[in-house]
Order: sequence, then C-alpha cells, then structure tokens
Amino acid sequence: MAVSCACLQASTVSRISHSATTLQTLRFSRNQVSCSSSPRMEPLHAEPQSKFIEFPYVCAPQRELMVELMSSIETRLGSDLHPCTLPPDVQYYENPNGSAHGSLHVRSGIPSSLINLILGSWIHCKLPSGGAVNITTLSAYLRSSTNAPNFVIEFIRTSPVSLVLILDLPPRKDLVLHPEYLKVFYEDTQLDRHRKHLQELPVVRPYFSSSLFVRAVFSPSSIMVSIEANDDEEERIDDIIRDHISPIAKEMLGTWFDVCASVEREVGGDESAELERRDRIIKNKTIEIDLGLSYPRLFGQEVADRVLGVLRDILNA
Amino acid sequence: MAVSCACLQASTVSRISHSATTLQTLRFSRNQVSCSSSPRMEPLHAEPQSKFIEFPYVCAPQRELMVELMSSIETRLGSDLHPCTLPPDVQYYENPNGSAHGSLHVRSGIPSSLINLILGSWIHCKLPSGGAVNITTLSAYLRSSTNAPNFVIEFIRTSPVSLVLILDLPPRKDLVLHPEYLKVFYEDTQLDRHRKHLQELPVVRPYFSSSLFVRAVFSPSSIMVSIEANDDEEERIDDIIRDHISPIAKEMLGTWFDVCASVEREVGGDESAELERRDRIIKNKTIEIDLGLSYPRLFGQEVADRVLGVLRDILNA
Repeated sequence: MAVSCACLQASTVSRISHSATTLQTLRFSRNQVSCSSSPRMEPLHAEPQSKFIEFPYVCAPQRELMVELMSSIETRLGSDLHPCTLPPDVQYYENPNGSAHGSLHVRSGIPSSLINLILGSWIHCKLPSGGAVNITTLSAYLRSSTNAPNFVIEFIRTSPVSLVLILDLPPRKDLVLHPEYLKVFYEDTQLDRHRKHLQELPVVRPYFSSSLFVRAVFSPSSIMVSIEANDDEEERIDDIIRDHISPIAKEMLGTWFDVCASVEREVGGDESAELERRDRIIKNKTIEIDLGLSYPRLFGQEVADRVLGVLRDILNA
Repeated sequence: MAVSCACLQASTVSRISHSATTLQTLRFSRNQVSCSSSPRMEPLHAEPQSKFIEFPYVCAPQRELMVELMSSIETRLGSDLHPCTLPPDVQYYENPNGSAHGSLHVRSGIPSSLINLILGSWIHCKLPSGGAVNITTLSAYLRSSTNAPNFVIEFIRTSPVSLVLILDLPPRKDLVLHPEYLKVFYEDTQLDRHRKHLQELPVVRPYFSSSLFVRAVFSPSSIMVSIEANDDEEERIDDIIRDHISPIAKEMLGTWFDVCASVEREVGGDESAELERRDRIIKNKTIEIDLGLSYPRLFGQEVADRVLGVLRDILNA
C-alpha cells in the first residue's frame, strides 16, 4: 500500500481541477503567473535519462532540494536499484501544442531488496495568463516483504505565491487496529514535530485534498499544507522551501531510510497478501479515477495513453 | 472501531493537559475564565438520573443542542434502548474539594437492536483564575453485527472565547482497504460539506489533537476545529454554536440514524471479530492511557477508580 505517485498527482491534478475543472478552463484560468525563479521555460533537448533530475521549471530552492533527495537515494539505496529503463518518450513527454511537459523516472528494486519502486515525476503546464502550474513528486515504495511505511513528497506550485506541499511516510496498515505500528513509525520517530514547525509559520495553513480517499491514505502526522504569500512577496515561498521545507524533507527521508527502508521486519503470508491488496487498491484507484481523467485533458489522449499505460504496468507489476 | 466517549474525553483531557500538564498546573493556569452564559455554577442536587441531561454548566445554545440531540435519540431509538442503570455516584460525581464535577449517562441497546451503547458525559472543572473548563460528549456505538460508523460529538470549552469541537461519524474499517465503505458513508452522504462550511467561518481553525491515535480514529471528513474569539467577543462562540454547529450536528445525527443505525448490513464472522477487536483496542487504549492518567488528577483516585471502573466494565461488556 502506501501512496503512489499517481495518488499524489491525483490530489494534485484534482487541485488544479478545483480551480480549473477541465483543460479548457485551465487554459483560460486567471490569476496564475509563472514561477519567476524558474531557470528556463523551454522544453529540454538533453538526453531523456537526465531530464527528470534537471527539474527545469521549478525555483532554485526546490530544484536543489529535489536533487539532494535523489542524490541521497542514490547514496543509500543505489546498489539495491535497477537503472531507469523507461522508454524515452515516457521519461519525457509533452502535449501536441507544447504547453504541457512532463517527465517520469522509475527505478525498481532488485529482488533481494526491500525496495519496490522509486518513482519520480514532474509536470509543467503553461497557463493562458502567462503563468504555469508545476507539480513535482517523489515517492519511494517498499515491498510487501516489509510492512514499513513508504515515503512521499509532492510540490504543487500554482504560482510564485502559492504552494501546496504533501510530505509524509504514508502508513501501510490500519493505525487504529495496529497502535504498535503507530508507535514505532510515528510516535517514536516524532514525525509530528515537523508538521507543527511548518504550521507555526504565518503563511502556512492546513491543506485538505478534495478527495477523501487521498486524505485517508496519509498518516496523522502527514504534512499537508498550503502556503499562500501576498502578490508582492514572490520570494517568500522560495525562502520557506529553502529554510524550512528543505531541512524537514531531508530529515524525514533520513528517518525513512533508517527506520523503514533498511530494517527487515517479519511479515506473515496473510499480512503480505493484505499489504499487496492495499497497495493495489491505492494504485488502481488513483490511476483509473484521477490520472485517467486528468492526463488526457492535460496532455491529449495519445500521450496520456502512453504514459499511463507504462505507469499502470509498473505499478501493477 | 469507532471512537469511544473515553477516546474523546482523552483528546479532551489531553488538550487540557496541553496547557496544564497536571492537575497541579491546571489549578494554577492563567488566562482562563468561566463561561459567562453558564446558567449555574453550583453542583446539582436533583435526582442523579436527570443530571446528565441538564447540562448545568454550559452556555444556553450548547445545552439546547445537547438536549435536542438526546431527544432525537429517544425518539428514533428509544424502543431499542435499556434505561440508564448506572449507580447514582457514577451518574453524578465530584472531587473531594468540589472544584470538579462530572456526569455519566449510559443506555445499552436491547439484544435485537444494532445499537451497542449510547454514552454521554460531561465534566466541569473550576480553575483557580475563576474560570472553568467544560467538556461535553455524546457518543453512539453500534454492535459488531453491523460495520456502519458510530457517531460522536464533543465540546471542549476552556473559556467563553475558546472552544474545540469534534463531530464525526468515526469509521469502523480501514478506509484505504475499503474504498466502497468510504463511498457509502462519507462521499455519498456529502459529510465533508459540513466541515467546509464551518472552516469558512473566520474564527474557526483546524484542530490537531496532541494524540496521533486520536487523529487516526476519526474520518477524513471529521470536524475537528478550534474556535477562538477575541476577549471582547464573549457571545461570538455561543452564536456560532447556535447558528452553525447546532444545525450541522442535528443533520449529521440524522444522517447517522438514516444510513448507519437503521440499516441492516451483512457482516461475516471474520469481519465481526475484527470489528470487535478494533472497537476493543480503541476503548482499552483510551481508558488505560488517557483517562487513566487524567481522571485521578481531576477527581482524585477514589472517584476516578469508581467512575473508570464502571466505564471499563461497560465498554468491555
């Protein structure tokens, strides 16, 4: 179980859909401006394999954080992971008129490791107003040979002054039925202090996904916040990413490495089967219902079929 | 499954404990004033059976709401319920120096009904500053012959200008593993609109219990809010209770009657056993860990032993 990148992109795209229910309305939505600190706004022409980790459309502090998280994963888990073997036109894709770009990056774990998948993605969608929406996601999934939580971070930047952040170790078991699981992974690790710290910042507010299913997927100490600065404070959110979100995200990934990804746990056959079932429900529900609706609108049916087809195969493998 | 009154009082008392970690600190806490609209502040001397439904220490709009909720339960479920047979000194109790008062009210369902328990309680604790804390809870639990959610409402009023409200149909199954359950009880009933409505009011903020377990118990559409008015706006929270909370609470109880308490559902033997186990975990965890620590501080060991002993017997029956 645990959250899939798909699930997060679902919350994401559904958030876009909130203010812009269809691609049509997204095209004509107002009050959206591009992220001023994006280093470049044109499609990349480097080799596909490198496009994901360039994070070309996001602000510098977010790009630096994502590169550091990917580098930590390489350092800690690299020997457990196969290389990314996605087709080039799935590693990087765009819509026919060039207003939407996306990248997918997948590294599966070798059979002997606890890692199921490392899955990263970003999408960049220009808005008719001249602005853009940038969504960046990194998820790490464990196999059903362990019941430990997964890891996920997602940035949804709808303008230089508006960000939704989802950052969590989503549980893979019912926390009410398994309070010892809650204790080991959430209470003993004191994860809630990160949420508290962020929510004490004046511009940070709790964020409620429009999907009850997405809300149900995350832990009670999940960071689900929306950060809204004034229009004349374009750098404020960049500063918050650099000074607050970045250290928290790195510490939470470190906790995940130490407590979840590198510790063998006894999982019985019945439990493993239920973990598989729970994972599969999340993956299928989010691909079919959420991404299945949003991707065709954002990228056109052909690109959506190609990318979602590969994603479906990977997540159901 | 589902939340127990104990669980709610736990969040409650743990909230008191937040600003006042022990009874000692509670005694000397500052900036707390009594609810100005409390109709009377002295212990009751009426017959014990009637004390619970008098709600003697809370403001008029809250008392009127609680009386209406109890009356609705009587109307809709009265023939399914045994009378309250608690000992008089558990139906009403106070601490040795008379600064803390409490009342417990329990009606169990007859064997043929879906109702397990209706459990109400209130506590009133004077503060040295002259103020008082009032906590009022009403919970309705179903049997394991159905898997439908329970109902709970809790008011934690720490001053005339400060209220925490918890209002929910707490789920009795893992919503990730059972998305059809989420759909029937939460999406189709559109419960989330009530949370949205309340959170649009300027003085209403999301509330995060200090207990991750308590947070995990509630549904993704739960109303968990804190309402803080300015010191010169003593009537503002009373107005919000009357104009907003009261209609929402009555509608949510109606939804619970119609969708949960009066509909037979097929529950297999394994599922019923897991429902029993989940219910029992919540009840025991909250009694032993939370109330077990707080009640002796608030009421003294003898009263705590008496009330919690009866509560333990009821919840584990």
